[in-house]
Amino acid sequence: MERVWTTQLGAHVGERVRVAGWLHRLRLLSNFSFLILRDGQGLAQIFIDDAALSARLAALRAETVLAIEGTVVAEPQAPGGVEIHAPAVEVLAEAAAPPPFDLFRPTVKAQLPTLLDNAPVGLRHPRQRGLFRMAAVSMAGFRAALAARDFVEIQTPKIVGAATEGGANVFRIDYFGQPAYLSQSPQLYKQIMVGVFERVFEVGPAFRAEPHDTPRHINEFVSLDVELGFIRDHHDVMELLNRVLESMVAAIQAELAAGTIGALPRPLPAVPARIPAIHFTEALELYSQATGDDARGEPDLAPAHERWLGEWASREHGSDFLFVWGYPTAKRAFYTHPDPARPGYSRGFDLLFRGLELVSGGQRLHRYDDYLAVLAERGMPAESFAGYLQAFRHGMPPHGGFAIGLERWVARLIEAPNIRETTLFPRDLARLTP
Amino acid sequence: MERVWTTQLGAHVGERVRVAGWLHRLRLLSNFSFLILRDGQGLAQIFIDDAALSARLAALRAETVLAIEGTVVAEPQAPGGVEIHAPAVEVLAEAAAPPPFDLFRPTVKAQLPTLLDNAPVGLRHPRQRGLFRMAAVSMAGFRAALAARDFVEIQTPKIVGAATEGGANVFRIDYFGQPAYLSQSPQLYKQIMVGVFERVFEVGPAFRAEPHDTPRHINEFVSLDVELGFIRDHHDVMELLNRVLESMVAAIQAELAAGTIGALPRPLPAVPARIPAIHFTEALELYSQATGDDARGEPDLAPAHERWLGEWASREHGSDFLFVWGYPTAKRAFYTHPDPARPGYSRGFDLLFRGLELVSGGQRLHRYDDYLAVLAERGMPAESFAGYLQAFRHGMPPHGGFAIGLERWVARLIEAPNIRETTLFPRDLARLTP
Repeated sequence: MERVWTTQLGAHVGERVRVAGWLHRLRLLSNFSFLILRDGQGLAQIFIDDAALSARLAALRAETVLAIEGTVVAEPQAPGGVEIHAPAVEVLAEAAAPPPFDLFRPTVKAQLPTLLDNAPVGLRHPRQRGLFRMAAVSMAGFRAALAARDFVEIQTPKIVGAATEGGANVFRIDYFGQPAYLSQSPQLYKQIMVGVFERVFEVGPAFRAEPHDTPRHINEFVSLDVELGFIRDHHDVMELLNRVLESMVAAIQAELAAGTIGALPRPLPAVPARIPAIHFTEALELYSQATGDDARGEPDLAPAHERWLGEWASREHGSDFLFVWGYPTAKRAFYTHPDPARPGYSRGFDLLFRGLELVSGGQRLHRYDDYLAVLAERGMPAESFAGYLQAFRHGMPPHGGFAIGLERWVARLIEAPNIRETTLFPRDLARLTP
Repeated sequence: MERVWTTQLGAHVGERVRVAGWLHRLRLLSNFSFLILRDGQGLAQIFIDDAALSARLAALRAETVLAIEGTVVAEPQAPGGVEIHAPAVEVLAEAAAPPPFDLFRPTVKAQLPTLLDNAPVGLRHPRQRGLFRMAAVSMAGFRAALAARDFVEIQTPKIVGAATEGGANVFRIDYFGQPAYLSQSPQLYKQIMVGVFERVFEVGPAFRAEPHDTPRHINEFVSLDVELGFIRDHHDVMELLNRVLESMVAAIQAELAAGTIGALPRPLPAVPARIPAIHFTEALELYSQATGDDARGEPDLAPAHERWLGEWASREHGSDFLFVWGYPTAKRAFYTHPDPARPGYSRGFDLLFRGLELVSGGQRLHRYDDYLAVLAERGMPAESFAGYLQAFRHGMPPHGGFAIGLERWVARLIEAPNIRETTLFPRDLARLTP
């Protein structure tokens, strides 16, 4: 008999089916019992009125692996509106110990460190695993939007010969006796690849050796990177990001409808057809006028400014998202394209989501001489960038891009207080396992 | 005017269009000239009968970035059957130096090391970049087959706390003063995640510190990993791999038809609906009988055996692919499930492609006690595997999986003599840049 997912049982009422999964919970009542079986997608309720079977099941530990054949019966009181009756139960693998915390409760009753220490079991909880299904479909929505626009997926090296982007906060590797580093971002490689395919994206790990123990910092994360050539300016990049976000949110919406994620603490954001965008100086001007706190001339946005701007975008534009562009050039990475119309300001942007920074991007420099000048100006040695510079030496179109941190994306959507909640097996100052 | 790809020009005959890309070649004849423009997808021929424009273009270096407006004219002699006439040419970015080798020749006239040293330019050659478009669509075909079967994509950490799979050939990192390692494969994590989603896949980097300077070795590669639960045995895993390969080959076929890859040195393999499969001992028996070279009792297949088996599969089954399963347990990784019917032999398999190993996989152990026993037997410390073992302690279904090396996959398809040809920016004993 072909096995069916628990989420498909509604389509099999009156039939005999085979389901399989984990013993999520057993509730023994006086004359019968209920077994809740959890499979990779959902839960199924099994009704047992056979005392011998109930006794056999009562001897098993939670998380024992079972295959069950039974008849699907409509039962409005049961989760999903169906129940399995007259079950034949086969034990596929017994659990050797009870789980470190109950998985059947609506939320795991354990502190975050305990949950992370026991992630191989904790991730099985429906709420926890729902977060990583959100991450999975977010990646799928990201790729779908880009593939439809002729972007080519690349995979660039994570072992690099020079600590290029700034130099600090980089992990060192012993590479056959030579020093090497873990890539902080695929930035330089994705720009090089614009010279090859014009439009590229990458989904892969990025590493930052930041020695900060905060709820916002992890030392390895998944970066969703995009870069595209032949743009007019950064507005083309923002327009693409707008379409990509639409696709990512739609993919999560579809999964929510399928019931494999569970409820979110807040509704998913609507992505406007055109996300409102304001210049950096206009953002500070609006803030200063409204609050009486004079922030004009500040070199960057502080968290308080971002929070206020988030409220402003919601109030004035009904939008959870807001683009702020034109950050001071000095505050952005060396490859950021300056704004020819406003000396000192750049074509770099941030996307704020509910008043918090979510994505950074912008137009990049594309002329060889501009790179030589900016590296010299910032005291960065051109020799460390030989391969990168070669791309510009041999003709590169105006281009730009952005990067979305996958863990941060999911964390912001569910308003998780700690990014470790949405990181599969987090790496931080204290944590190298599991 | 909206810009169109060069590959779309056939649909615009008689219209005025805008194309953009790189100055691939300029051929100056006595009364007119031809400019070949390369964009991210293909090539377009521009016909120029304006002497002033020809002179202006002659002053530009190859790889200068251009935008061109002109009228599309059917021209059976031209590549793609169309040509652009009456062009207006805008220079977007001048190349600062001539390329290190001609990009317009059918193949790059340079030795592999030169090509790799100059990868940012070399990858622009249509033949070179076609290989990485093959890689991109292979990944897409891989994911499509798995998403259709309810697999969930995961991204697992590449910084790990213990050198788990064997211990040798692992890169060490300085992790805030503690030793850590680069992941050699997501094997342990993907098994843990079978306990969460049942069916998972991952596309990501894997690192092997093998100090071998051969055409087959690279130290960082892209691994396409799959793991699935609730299998009967390894035959379910082989069946899934069969479907995944079908999807990957179909994706390349579609791209070949679109003209963005270029010709392959050999036709793409047909993937049989059911790839022939033989037991390891049967493979050695067939070889021994046919060749008179007695290989019965060998602990593994030697390259000569694999070559002969490739020919045998082609002759007897008309198949480029052959599964060999049941390798001696001692020769496989510790997590390999033994064959209960044949002591000493396992449920591990290899997939041979044209007589060379392409994919490894198998059923894994799933019982906690079996893991404790095998680790003790092999002298591996259980403490190093605490998180992994926790998954088995708390109930795991029978499961198995496989891993495909992306660079090797493309290399075998095009019969590249050196895997560096199909590696985007290879890392080896001598090479950390570009």
